[in-house]
Amino acid sequence: TINGDRLWQSLMDLAEIGAYDDERTGLRGVNRLALTDADAAGRRRVVAWMEEAGLAVRIDRMGNIYGRREGTDPTAAPVLTGSHIDSVATAGAFDGCLGVLGGIEVVRTLNERGITTRRPIEVGIFTEEEGVRFGTDMLGSAVAAGRLTLEYAHALTDRDGHTLGGELIRTGFAGPTDVRLAPPHAYVECHIEQGPVLAENDVPVGVVTGVQGISWQEITIHGRAAHAGTTPTHLRADAGLAAAQIIVHLRSLVDSGAYGDLRATVGHLIVHPDLTNIVPARAEMTVDLRNPDEAQMARAEEALAAFLRDLENSRSGLSLTTRRMAKTAYVPFDDGVQKVIAQAADDHGLEHISLLSGAGHDAQEIAALCPTAMIFVRGEYDGISHNPREYSTPEACAHGVDVLATTLLRLADQ
Amino acid sequence: TINGDRLWQSLMDLAEIGAYDDERTGLRGVNRLALTDADAAGRRRVVAWMEEAGLAVRIDRMGNIYGRREGTDPTAAPVLTGSHIDSVATAGAFDGCLGVLGGIEVVRTLNERGITTRRPIEVGIFTEEEGVRFGTDMLGSAVAAGRLTLEYAHALTDRDGHTLGGELIRTGFAGPTDVRLAPPHAYVECHIEQGPVLAENDVPVGVVTGVQGISWQEITIHGRAAHAGTTPTHLRADAGLAAAQIIVHLRSLVDSGAYGDLRATVGHLIVHPDLTNIVPARAEMTVDLRNPDEAQMARAEEALAAFLRDLENSRSGLSLTTRRMAKTAYVPFDDGVQKVIAQAADDHGLEHISLLSGAGHDAQEIAALCPTAMIFVRGEYDGISHNPREYSTPEACAHGVDVLATTLLRLADQ
Ligand SMILES: NC(=O)NCCC(=O)O
Ligand SMILES: NC(=O)NCCC(=O)O
Repeated sequence: TINGDRLWQSLMDLAEIGAYDDERTGLRGVNRLALTDADAAGRRRVVAWMEEAGLAVRIDRMGNIYGRREGTDPTAAPVLTGSHIDSVATAGAFDGCLGVLGGIEVVRTLNERGITTRRPIEVGIFTEEEGVRFGTDMLGSAVAAGRLTLEYAHALTDRDGHTLGGELIRTGFAGPTDVRLAPPHAYVECHIEQGPVLAENDVPVGVVTGVQGISWQEITIHGRAAHAGTTPTHLRADAGLAAAQIIVHLRSLVDSGAYGDLRATVGHLIVHPDLTNIVPARAEMTVDLRNPDEAQMARAEEALAAFLRDLENSRSGLSLTTRRMAKTAYVPFDDGVQKVIAQAADDHGLEHISLLSGAGHDAQEIAALCPTAMIFVRGEYDGISHNPREYSTPEACAHGVDVLATTLLRLADQ
Repeated sequence: TINGDRLWQSLMDLAEIGAYDDERTGLRGVNRLALTDADAAGRRRVVAWMEEAGLAVRIDRMGNIYGRREGTDPTAAPVLTGSHIDSVATAGAFDGCLGVLGGIEVVRTLNERGITTRRPIEVGIFTEEEGVRFGTDMLGSAVAAGRLTLEYAHALTDRDGHTLGGELIRTGFAGPTDVRLAPPHAYVECHIEQGPVLAENDVPVGVVTGVQGISWQEITIHGRAAHAGTTPTHLRADAGLAAAQIIVHLRSLVDSGAYGDLRATVGHLIVHPDLTNIVPARAEMTVDLRNPDEAQMARAEEALAAFLRDLENSRSGLSLTTRRMAKTAYVPFDDGVQKVIAQAADDHGLEHISLLSGAGHDAQEIAALCPTAMIFVRGEYDGISHNPREYSTPEACAHGVDVLATTLLRLADQ
């Protein structure tokens, strides 16, 4: 078993980088958007920990960081673990960090015990997993796995027009090594569940069977600025009203039950000129759809598209454009790796269930390169995440990393 | 008759201060929010024109500016005209400016002709008529008329936390004279209609019978940030969805026809943290209601309040707060002044109709001090306003100011 106190201390130390105090709730949150100064400071801290643990650190052209512990067989492909340390703007201490710091904790434990493995073990930190700064999630791992190109990623811009490529250089994380990852032997990622299933089933860890499909798009609505007091209702082309109708319609699609286990979220919404007595001339919003079933996802996307067409046709003066931000299909994980994880949990006497992931993870990208699966750790408060209230107990974190350690050892001796 | 070319030239010159090019439409707009650098530059230009026209300029503690042309009777109360030169962020050249520059053009014409009047004529420029920077419309005139206090106005803040009092000092428009206006003999304001009625009736000018009621409030909705992928729909407290439901509900109140001639606009809307994969934790929006009938306005406000209560009660985890920003009742204008305006239009051979104003105007505040009415000038393109497309022809502007000149002369000799 790993050192749970040391793991916890690392999690709490890292959470101070980019920390903020939430006035309303009194909670302390984390805001470490990818490739901001806070993220760069976090990266430097974690790289220092990797080096203290004896890992050989390399950084690729996408800013992905790998720390390598050599095995006894110099020709064997490594077993990879890891996750991300970038966060959303209202995050907790665990999302992503548990997988990275858990991987480092496993290495520390192996070092202390003098354990050697046949295969190398590598711990990866992937760039912009959250996708909230540059608009595409699982970005670093998607480029490492070859699904997206380096050029595409470098050209992405944040809301202030900064390119990802420029921010890599500015923060000092535009590394020299090739971004395409040589296929590892296997990839295992330990992550908080970010949902209520493990708590509802009262088990500490989950074996993840795959990741549901994710569809992100941006919708821009052009209407016409007009005076709120004088413009008769029938002469308005109200972009804000259209955005509101889309949001309400999306919820009705979910509530209808006709699109399987659909989830729909409008997280980003702005109107322009954004003034009390002016009918909005323009609205910009994002739509995040999730569905474990590819056919149902396609039907939901088509239902949204039909609604947008109707809005454009029915309401004179409105025009709508959509832009695809990200789209990942349902990804099933490897049965063999799932079995190793389940066996490891049994060895530690930990109850476990199998479950699908609601969130996207770097593992779904690396799954294109090698057998892959994930370990989920239970979260409190319905598993709330992307919120300062996000919390997993020290015990739950230690249990998850115990399972990770045993899983990595098994895979590294295959 | 006044000099229409000179009036037009002044309008076009002033519109260059704070001008911007609208990329999408190719139009040139005006952005001169109250007490910004652009507004201060506009004020300096207009004060220079006042001085060139021989007006004695004074500035009060609210930044309201008055230019005075003496009459022959030193004891007679002045006839006041004027309007505002602050603008919304997506404005045209005419809103407010026509009344101020029209007043100055009348003075220029009287000077050229060597015409003296018994009463003094004053031209006023009122601070923050639009209400979009500091949240309360007709602010300068409301303080001058005694409806709102100077302390209230000075303490108002913009979105960046700048106080109005501080901005008055910063721009050099915190004047020395008393803000409470000694009752003028009468007030007449010439303004673009900002609506379609005059164009629909194919008449150049309107005699304004009053201003409909205006209700502005800000609604803040507190929900709970949560992960878009993992959070089951029934566990969400989505502040953005609630905002959307309010917007859609407001439109249904309007469309129901059950609240008289209600207009409802949500012009300002932001969500927090405003990121693709996070259920909004907070939404902030404004609601602008207009109604010519006070009882119908009260019913509409109550219908909105009931909807907000239902939202709060039905959806666990949502809490809503409202803040009153501005509220003005229906204001009827003076019959006598309306008759003088109608007679002046007849004298110029201009067809006219009587109509109610959809927008708030400084005249409704000054109406508390003295007999007051307004002259409306026809706008093109359905009278669109608060939009760079806002346009009245040079002829229409000149017609309106001709009527203003004759009206002021009559009133100044009463
Ligand atoms: N785990 C996680 O929060 N990933 C971000 C991508 C997503 O929104 O699912
Ligand atoms: N005339 C004008 O645009 N006034 C601003 C106040 C309002 O919104 O009616």
